Amino acid sequence: MFLSRTILEEKLRRMLAEDIGQGDITTALVIPADTVVEAEVLCKEAGVAAGIEEARILLECSGLSTEALVADGEKMRSKQVLMKISGDARTVLSVERTVLNLVSRMSGIATTTRNLAERLRRSGAKARIACTRKTAPGLLYFDKKAVQVGGGDTHRLHLDDMILIKDNHIAVAGSVEKAIRKAKERASLSKKIEVEVTNTEDALMAAEAGADIIMLDNFSPEQTAKAVVLLEKKKLREKVLLEASGGITAENIVVFASTAVDIVSLGEITNSTKALDVSLEIVKVK
Amino acid sequence: MFLSRTILEEKLRRMLAEDIGQGDITTALVIPADTVVEAEVLCKEAGVAAGIEEARILLECSGLSTEALVADGEKMRSKQVLMKISGDARTVLSVERTVLNLVSRMSGIATTTRNLAERLRRSGAKARIACTRKTAPGLLYFDKKAVQVGGGDTHRLHLDDMILIKDNHIAVAGSVEKAIRKAKERASLSKKIEVEVTNTEDALMAAEAGADIIMLDNFSPEQTAKAVVLLEKKKLREKVLLEASGGITAENIVVFASTAVDIVSLGEITNSTKALDVSLEIVKVK
Amino acid sequence: MFLSRTILEEKLRRMLAEDIGQGDITTALVIPADTVVEAEVLCKEAGVAAGIEEARILLECSGLSTEALVADGEKMRSKQVLMKISGDARTVLSVERTVLNLVSRMSGIATTTRNLAERLRRSGAKARIACTRKTAPGLLYFDKKAVQVGGGDTHRLHLDDMILIKDNHIAVAGSVEKAIRKAKERASLSKKIEVEVTNTEDALMAAEAGADIIMLDNFSPEQTAKAVVLLEKKKLREKVLLEASGGITAENIVVFASTAVDIVSLGEITNSTKALDVSLEIVKVK
Amino acid sequence: MFLSRTILEEKLRRMLAEDIGQGDITTALVIPADTVVEAEVLCKEAGVAAGIEEARILLECSGLSTEALVADGEKMRSKQVLMKISGDARTVLSVERTVLNLVSRMSGIATTTRNLAERLRRSGAKARIACTRKTAPGLLYFDKKAVQVGGGDTHRLHLDDMILIKDNHIAVAGSVEKAIRKAKERASLSKKIEVEVTNTEDALMAAEAGADIIMLDNFSPEQTAKAVVLLEKKKLREKVLLEASGGITAENIVVFASTAVDIVSLGEITNSTKALDVSLEIVKVK
Amino acid sequence: MFLSRTILEEKLRRMLAEDIGQGDITTALVIPADTVVEAEVLCKEAGVAAGIEEARILLECSGLSTEALVADGEKMRSKQVLMKISGDARTVLSVERTVLNLVSRMSGIATTTRNLAERLRRSGAKARIACTRKTAPGLLYFDKKAVQVGGGDTHRLHLDDMILIKDNHIAVAGSVEKAIRKAKERASLSKKIEVEVTNTEDALMAAEAGADIIMLDNFSPEQTAKAVVLLEKKKLREKVLLEASGGITAENIVVFASTAVDIVSLGEITNSTKALDVSLEIVKVK
Amino acid sequence: MFLSRTILEEKLRRMLAEDIGQGDITTALVIPADTVVEAEVLCKEAGVAAGIEEARILLECSGLSTEALVADGEKMRSKQVLMKISGDARTVLSVERTVLNLVSRMSGIATTTRNLAERLRRSGAKARIACTRKTAPGLLYFDKKAVQVGGGDTHRLHLDDMILIKDNHIAVAGSVEKAIRKAKERASLSKKIEVEVTNTEDALMAAEAGADIIMLDNFSPEQTAKAVVLLEKKKLREKVLLEASGGITAENIVVFASTAVDIVSLGEITNSTKALDVSLEIVKVK
Repeated sequence: MFLSRTILEEKLRRMLAEDIGQGDITTALVIPADTVVEAEVLCKEAGVAAGIEEARILLECSGLSTEALVADGEKMRSKQVLMKISGDARTVLSVERTVLNLVSRMSGIATTTRNLAERLRRSGAKARIACTRKTAPGLLYFDKKAVQVGGGDTHRLHLDDMILIKDNHIAVAGSVEKAIRKAKERASLSKKIEVEVTNTEDALMAAEAGADIIMLDNFSPEQTAKAVVLLEKKKLREKVLLEASGGITAENIVVFASTAVDIVSLGEITNSTKALDVSLEIVKVK
Repeated sequence: MFLSRTILEEKLRRMLAEDIGQGDITTALVIPADTVVEAEVLCKEAGVAAGIEEARILLECSGLSTEALVADGEKMRSKQVLMKISGDARTVLSVERTVLNLVSRMSGIATTTRNLAERLRRSGAKARIACTRKTAPGLLYFDKKAVQVGGGDTHRLHLDDMILIKDNHIAVAGSVEKAIRKAKERASLSKKIEVEVTNTEDALMAAEAGADIIMLDNFSPEQTAKAVVLLEKKKLREKVLLEASGGITAENIVVFASTAVDIVSLGEITNSTKALDVSLEIVKVK
Repeated sequence: MFLSRTILEEKLRRMLAEDIGQGDITTALVIPADTVVEAEVLCKEAGVAAGIEEARILLECSGLSTEALVADGEKMRSKQVLMKISGDARTVLSVERTVLNLVSRMSGIATTTRNLAERLRRSGAKARIACTRKTAPGLLYFDKKAVQVGGGDTHRLHLDDMILIKDNHIAVAGSVEKAIRKAKERASLSKKIEVEVTNTEDALMAAEAGADIIMLDNFSPEQTAKAVVLLEKKKLREKVLLEASGGITAENIVVFASTAVDIVSLGEITNSTKALDVSLEIVKVK
Repeated sequence: MFLSRTILEEKLRRMLAEDIGQGDITTALVIPADTVVEAEVLCKEAGVAAGIEEARILLECSGLSTEALVADGEKMRSKQVLMKISGDARTVLSVERTVLNLVSRMSGIATTTRNLAERLRRSGAKARIACTRKTAPGLLYFDKKAVQVGGGDTHRLHLDDMILIKDNHIAVAGSVEKAIRKAKERASLSKKIEVEVTNTEDALMAAEAGADIIMLDNFSPEQTAKAVVLLEKKKLREKVLLEASGGITAENIVVFASTAVDIVSLGEITNSTKALDVSLEIVKVK
Repeated sequence: MFLSRTILEEKLRRMLAEDIGQGDITTALVIPADTVVEAEVLCKEAGVAAGIEEARILLECSGLSTEALVADGEKMRSKQVLMKISGDARTVLSVERTVLNLVSRMSGIATTTRNLAERLRRSGAKARIACTRKTAPGLLYFDKKAVQVGGGDTHRLHLDDMILIKDNHIAVAGSVEKAIRKAKERASLSKKIEVEVTNTEDALMAAEAGADIIMLDNFSPEQTAKAVVLLEKKKLREKVLLEASGGITAENIVVFASTAVDIVSLGEITNSTKALDVSLEIVKVK
Repeated sequence: MFLSRTILEEKLRRMLAEDIGQGDITTALVIPADTVVEAEVLCKEAGVAAGIEEARILLECSGLSTEALVADGEKMRSKQVLMKISGDARTVLSVERTVLNLVSRMSGIATTTRNLAERLRRSGAKARIACTRKTAPGLLYFDKKAVQVGGGDTHRLHLDDMILIKDNHIAVAGSVEKAIRKAKERASLSKKIEVEVTNTEDALMAAEAGADIIMLDNFSPEQTAKAVVLLEKKKLREKVLLEASGGITAENIVVFASTAVDIVSLGEITNSTKALDVSLEIVKVK
């Protein structure tokens, strides 16, 4: 997910513009026009850094100098200084909140992702953690980027990058089989096809029909394990990736992962994330 | 926070555009072009509805018919049908996730806000709950609207709607007093002035200097209570509103509120919110 | 009203884009591609400078070097050089008109504001001059900024930064009292409440109901004076700010101000402003 | 200047969005959600209507019904009802100011233009009134449209629709002659060429070099008359249009026009316009 | 590639806005304001229809009624009426060219694609035609949609929907093998991996390293055939899709396709397309 | 057509944004974050350079250094290096395709234009080549700029820069004469008037009515020649420019041009252009 800087600046500028409105009236009244300051972005609790790159670009395109002391994906201790900033005081103060909101949300997502990923690793499971499209509305880029930084799989980035046949598609198409057949007839060769199924028979049918990935939706761990065994018996296990999804939480993720699926996906990483506590302190007024 | 529909459509369209990318490839392959369906938005857990108005506008500007069965601010039972939708199947499926992300985030925020507000009410405290500018980046409008729907105070909507002198402003200005004096000299008469203080002396000084609101930042409940008493003794209590902020959580909010402050504000309502579980089901294919 | 540069650039770029269309065809034909020039922005009549900051940002984001010889808010003599510009000749010529339109409108507004403010000061009145939302459509930021530079009060910057209950709101709500009560019940504590009244009784009622500011709309100077006296008698004068509005012009402003109101506001500063005559001259071709 | 409605809506929506910010907080607090009203736009002084079409489109794209009782370009009496509006009360109140700002500015410009045009007509002069690119910044479309509605000539709509060689172009090109020669060599056949000259010799040279229009910049009425005579003597008068420009005001416009030039242009119509007083009144609450 | 209408409108509006500029001056002068007309879009040469859906949406969001007499993907005879339009004459005339440019380009692309696809079908080859990202700049959506309508494969829709390791990536990564290994380590499970190779050894290596698709870049038909044979011998042919690319034209496409590759891709469909001749005629003035 | 850089950047950024989507996933996986490279843009066939300026601006606003070795309008040999680029490898790879699409389309258009222009020049004809508004939809600026670079006439840049009365306008207006009369009554003096005619009588009538340019639409070369002779006989030839249009191709353009018309215009330069083959090669990894 490399986004060239000029494109990212536009997304960030829009966030800032919403927050500033017609202008930062406090700063204009209280801070003299030519004051130069040095400031630090600090982490107030331990976690995994994310959003540092985005913060840097926002600060720089606002005319400030920055130095990142931690890179996206690295661990942060509580009270660690993450970035040093210097430049026009009014600018620093008017972008402060947007910068902190970015870093605290993205680091929160990355930290949760990393914690879950390490829990799986320690359990010996091979499954990867993936997020879904259940993000804060409009923040797909930032939420998925943070998941990736935390070591998770971004799953679909848009509705255009993989064919994912869900319950509602099947309801209209008539059956899993019909839906897959339609998709395979005209799908671009550049796209994978994933199918969401709600029972083991449909999982089998999907594998036989040529799905690349099968999402076992709201299966219990036992059902999940059975589906794996059935596909192995039918010599189809190697041909598909299996994704456990629905009802998965931090509590039961290891149990699901231990069923030998390839992916466990959960929405709460991105839609119920806990922001990490970060702050910005002015350390020197020049 | 009434936003005329034509403006809101643009914000919603941008969210949808990010999610769709170059187009919904699954729907195009699997769903015939002229299929008409009926669908329902369902709540899978109890809570307070929010985002229904926004969802309705997004659905309608996409060419679908909607009927809202619950209004923003009303309580929802688990499994309750929130909205009925009818129209072009491809359109329904391509906006589904954006609609659900809106409703689940906004309802999550409204539910948390309402729960905290009711807890205060039951405790007999008069203080109001307020959110901060610690929102998901770029979602100030939606997050603040959800807080309001839940019965909370939106606090600043932008950097331009109240003068709020914070620690970093004071650091540059030199002292609480100087910062307030500068602000009062040239501030628009249409704006209130709030000052963040970190100790009781500064609270007193801010009240004497004419602040409209004083934010007691990271005070313990005891310090908060002392500040209230001091201001009463100095006959300044009536002239200012007091806001307790920093370190306030669902656990200790009643303790803070019982100190007779006017406002308790906390960032976690909007930056660490738990999304409510909502889904969309196609119930009829015509 | 401090707007960070990156946000302001976008507003300015949009103005320039409208003027240029598909490109400056004259300049492309007549001016060789690599010509470098020096130019000056000159004032052809005396006044108060405004828009210099905005002009500088537009010129710089177009790749030109600038030196401002006057700061926003300073007095300018006729024929004074306001800015020196150097850089690519084609760029200078294609931004010339947008730059001049900004400086001439904003300086016109600032000059009128300053003149009125000084007239009040000389008369001994304490009232401040304020503008309204009667600006050129779409130019709220620039018009309000110019008023502020001229020493006036910006009043509301948006519909979201103060509650202002006007005649039409009262017509729907039923009465001044009902409208204020509704507003106070749920208004954010961060916002002031202003009420527009058309007679002395309503002014009194508004003050009793807890309005922060009362707009005496289309009162004669005599009625205005009476309202002030009545509020003093009722011990309510200290609790509210009084704004005289409607029918106020450069001619009668001193009379209104001498009634001891706090604010006199008038739309003509921003919607019937006289542009200051400024020009740009190329002084050297390199 | 016919702009298809969908394009115009976008320009108007942007104006509205600036004014509303995060939402109309007064209306949200004071006006119940489902109130329907009827309202009227009234003119408080006589003039020429303009902006009615633009107001109608803004109101309609906001979901309101409108009936225009006057068409752009028609005369309006004081107290005349210009438009009837009906629909959602909150929407009416939140677009009110943007609508009025449009109509009052555009009608102000159209009224001034018409007055000047009629003055010329009564004097028997054939010259047309034209505006310049000295408009409110960013409002080229609206200001030029208003001039046209008032009966004036829009002159250039952009930097791309006519070649206009001005003093600064000539300063870089070296001479009037060189500048015209360069322009004629490669100019598109679809464009006219106008040249600004500061003395009679250059006017003659420009006519000989093939300019379509010659702008006599800052000529006195006497110099203007002389230039006309000279061109007639040289049999060049028929080949060019002559535009008097610079220093022309409502006071001296007839004198300039009586010199038999084809166009008199002045910036003050659009950059120092007096807004017409219009208001919106709610006349019925349903 | 189903794009919900509200998103597509925005893309189309932008095209129209570029063409109209400050307004259609001819139509404003020549066509009375309330004229209603009926018009037809006609095809002046045979081909495959595309862009009809896009034209319909642009016309409808401009306030016109339309009836499509041909659907995207259907064959059109010369002189066939494709669409009927009715509504405001000025609007019809101001959108005419944008509508025709859309239909003529998209139908040109669809026609070429269909012709090539049928040529392959008649030759008995199984390979599918695919386009590349060599489109008109900024027209990825429209060009790819037209290819799809014509029966071709859209290939990547963005840089984010498949991993495609090209010559320049390999140059930086060091070798085909290293590049694939890096990609496979961290790639999302939702994405396929394609690798561009320039010789048979690298094709083999890529297949062994687990590429999903191998692009045989600038291979001659003979080399292509050899690569197929080699992969079959190594039992890798079933595991990968093979794409012939580079130097493929309408002339040699059958030769390439007959080598049993899965995909033949060529840039000229979208970057050197021949527009189909379509026109719009007003057939009735009401 | 000089467009100031800051405006052009926005158009180019939008193209890039469409292509990148949520990010370049290949580059992010395969190319290390701090790699610096040197690259070259090469021409693989001879032609006329165009788009070099646009490519340079896109590359520079993406943070890369560039050196152009050829200027727009110059001839390029096959295999010639057009530009050298250095900077961040990920950025180079993510903008590569957008840059190449710009240069290959614009150079293709410029090359075709130049070839036709030279063919006319060699034939001794005086007529200029012009393009039309038949461009790729949304690419008016880029396509017209390329025509100009190739030595052609851009004709109208928008619907607002010349009055062009076409068949459909005449159909509504009633006759050529009525349409011209209406246009001349109120047209801005800054605009030329062109009229499309379909027979010699209308050409004569248009010339008498005062058209500046007459478009002889779908005339055969013989009819064209006759029209020229007729206008000469009537002493009207000098007063108008004649444009041959419709049915003109590379094959018959010399025949048309030899009829002594002033302009021959054809849509295929811009809507059926052949892209020039250009590529980008990384030449050094630092």
